[in-house]
Amino acid sequence: MRATFLYGAGDVRVENAPDPVLQQPTDAVVRIVRSCICGSDLHPYHTLPASGQRTPMGYEFIGVVEELGSEVSGLKRGDLVVAPFAYSDNTCAFCREGLHTSCRNGGFWSAGGVGDGQAEAVRVPQAQGTLVKLPVAEDSELLPSLLTLSDVYGTGYHAAGQARVNPRTTVTVIGDGSVGLLAVLSARQLGAERIILMGRHQDRTDLGREFGATDVVPERGAEGIERVRELTGGDGTHTVLECVGYMSAYEMAVGVVRPGGVISRVGVPQYEEAPVGFTSLFGPNITLTGGPAPVRAHIEELLPGVLDGTVDPGRVFTRTIGLDEVPDGYRAMDRREALKVLVRP
Amino acid sequence: MRATFLYGAGDVRVENAPDPVLQQPTDAVVRIVRSCICGSDLHPYHTLPASGQRTPMGYEFIGVVEELGSEVSGLKRGDLVVAPFAYSDNTCAFCREGLHTSCRNGGFWSAGGVGDGQAEAVRVPQAQGTLVKLPVAEDSELLPSLLTLSDVYGTGYHAAGQARVNPRTTVTVIGDGSVGLLAVLSARQLGAERIILMGRHQDRTDLGREFGATDVVPERGAEGIERVRELTGGDGTHTVLECVGYMSAYEMAVGVVRPGGVISRVGVPQYEEAPVGFTSLFGPNITLTGGPAPVRAHIEELLPGVLDGTVDPGRVFTRTIGLDEVPDGYRAMDRREALKVLVRP
Repeated sequence: MRATFLYGAGDVRVENAPDPVLQQPTDAVVRIVRSCICGSDLHPYHTLPASGQRTPMGYEFIGVVEELGSEVSGLKRGDLVVAPFAYSDNTCAFCREGLHTSCRNGGFWSAGGVGDGQAEAVRVPQAQGTLVKLPVAEDSELLPSLLTLSDVYGTGYHAAGQARVNPRTTVTVIGDGSVGLLAVLSARQLGAERIILMGRHQDRTDLGREFGATDVVPERGAEGIERVRELTGGDGTHTVLECVGYMSAYEMAVGVVRPGGVISRVGVPQYEEAPVGFTSLFGPNITLTGGPAPVRAHIEELLPGVLDGTVDPGRVFTRTIGLDEVPDGYRAMDRREALKVLVRP
Repeated sequence: MRATFLYGAGDVRVENAPDPVLQQPTDAVVRIVRSCICGSDLHPYHTLPASGQRTPMGYEFIGVVEELGSEVSGLKRGDLVVAPFAYSDNTCAFCREGLHTSCRNGGFWSAGGVGDGQAEAVRVPQAQGTLVKLPVAEDSELLPSLLTLSDVYGTGYHAAGQARVNPRTTVTVIGDGSVGLLAVLSARQLGAERIILMGRHQDRTDLGREFGATDVVPERGAEGIERVRELTGGDGTHTVLECVGYMSAYEMAVGVVRPGGVISRVGVPQYEEAPVGFTSLFGPNITLTGGPAPVRAHIEELLPGVLDGTVDPGRVFTRTIGLDEVPDGYRAMDRREALKVLVRP
């Protein structure tokens, strides 16, 4: 089969790879119908040292079950399924608490010999717990929106949920990437009436307004902080959904959060240390929360709204390409020419 | 009057000072009946550079109202009152949300010309919002327990409350100072059944067991983390109440918290930057919360249990001294010869 590999910063290749096969009785093999490129893929795309080794890429996909291990029940060949960006057994103590990203038997794609999603097919560990059957056909127009359940919609929803967004909370969303825009959508779904979106790409923030943003702040840094403060009577917002991952975004979050408020991070931090002392988080009793979203926990909850058309998160896909065009897709996302790129293998 | 001042690290003096007088119509003047020394006082006691200037000390007290400004209602001369460690109007938006430490008209003792509590008398700004009348006499045996409502009991309670301790959460308390021990008491009050106390002073951890600790871990650092992991099947506890404030305590908190869990800090951080990235907080979806406790918000809630003897938080006072002995009191607390020192001016 064909699959996508990263050889080093800026060096994405689509190459031949062995067809995936069942290795464990809990595995499935899935033929991929739709995949996509994630903003998080751009982090290694910017920084991975060239080592001669290739790293499989991609972890969001919808596919059709082709083979099932002997211990997988509840699924059959031919089922159309969506996979979250982490696999999990959906039965351990952490999964039962909704923290599938810490599953005792789980893990992440592209690691430990598990393949990737930007490919023609993939081996799925813990298939019974991981895959969710979709009640639509392989050519459904809902596929883009359903694909966002793999990561970006569930991740935006996690940001809002961990921040306990509700009708009484004002919200700042930092970042106008697909996760930020779907954090806006999620905050609106949870009842927020005042949602300030910090982003400077007007085509994206326009979509953010359609998703529910009431204000857009294109300024960044100290100027952006001052703008949000002005919009909130000087206090900042009860919740800040940080959907970028850079230190500059963390600093903006600290700058715009209201005393007693919550900063909820879902952008993968590109830093390890950050200010958390008296003058940043402690003095004003700020809560810092978030992490990799256990999107598996949210799929059942978010699926009905996608199926009945209440929400259309698939609008974050602004370009569709074939598998061999994936290197172009990375470039387009990196240059902000595409918001999020859908891949049809 | 006589009052306590810090001139620099290790240099505490009790000296003459002007008698406090009303400055604002919202002020009161209170004659102090009981005061005490706080573990947080030891931070400047260790580090304050000698500058020739004197810093007033102390911010926990019970006293008798002697004078009232024209705009103070609900209090009268002769009332016995307890004051929280921050003053507040108890009416602004933040106070109504229970975040009195961020009061729009509030502040902290010993700052901006406001006097201190380790003294014979003190001016109280925002007296109507700050002071809470106590329904006991000036010689009541409950005074030590009532005095803990000024800070340490409310602070321990804030740690447990912010962590959302409940009957289903396991708890680690880091620190066997008075706040740590009262965090144990508070966690027990909130229903926690498994409370691991990390502390290495047996007289203190023995009191912690009486307050509700089910396990004591005297080891620190990596060894302490391993011990807590052993006690919890490898997972750590759902909540960690960090009642120390040093980086070593923060690192232990990160080491013993369960994936998806909460670290709640009430020890004043002696650092500004700390690990919060993928390998510490983000990856396992850890929430970091806490801050200076809005103890004013908790006084009405915690007062009945003190008055009816359900709890006896005043047991943290292991020594009582007069005002002129305050420098000895600092030394005794610094040398861990006294857990917390009560001052009778």
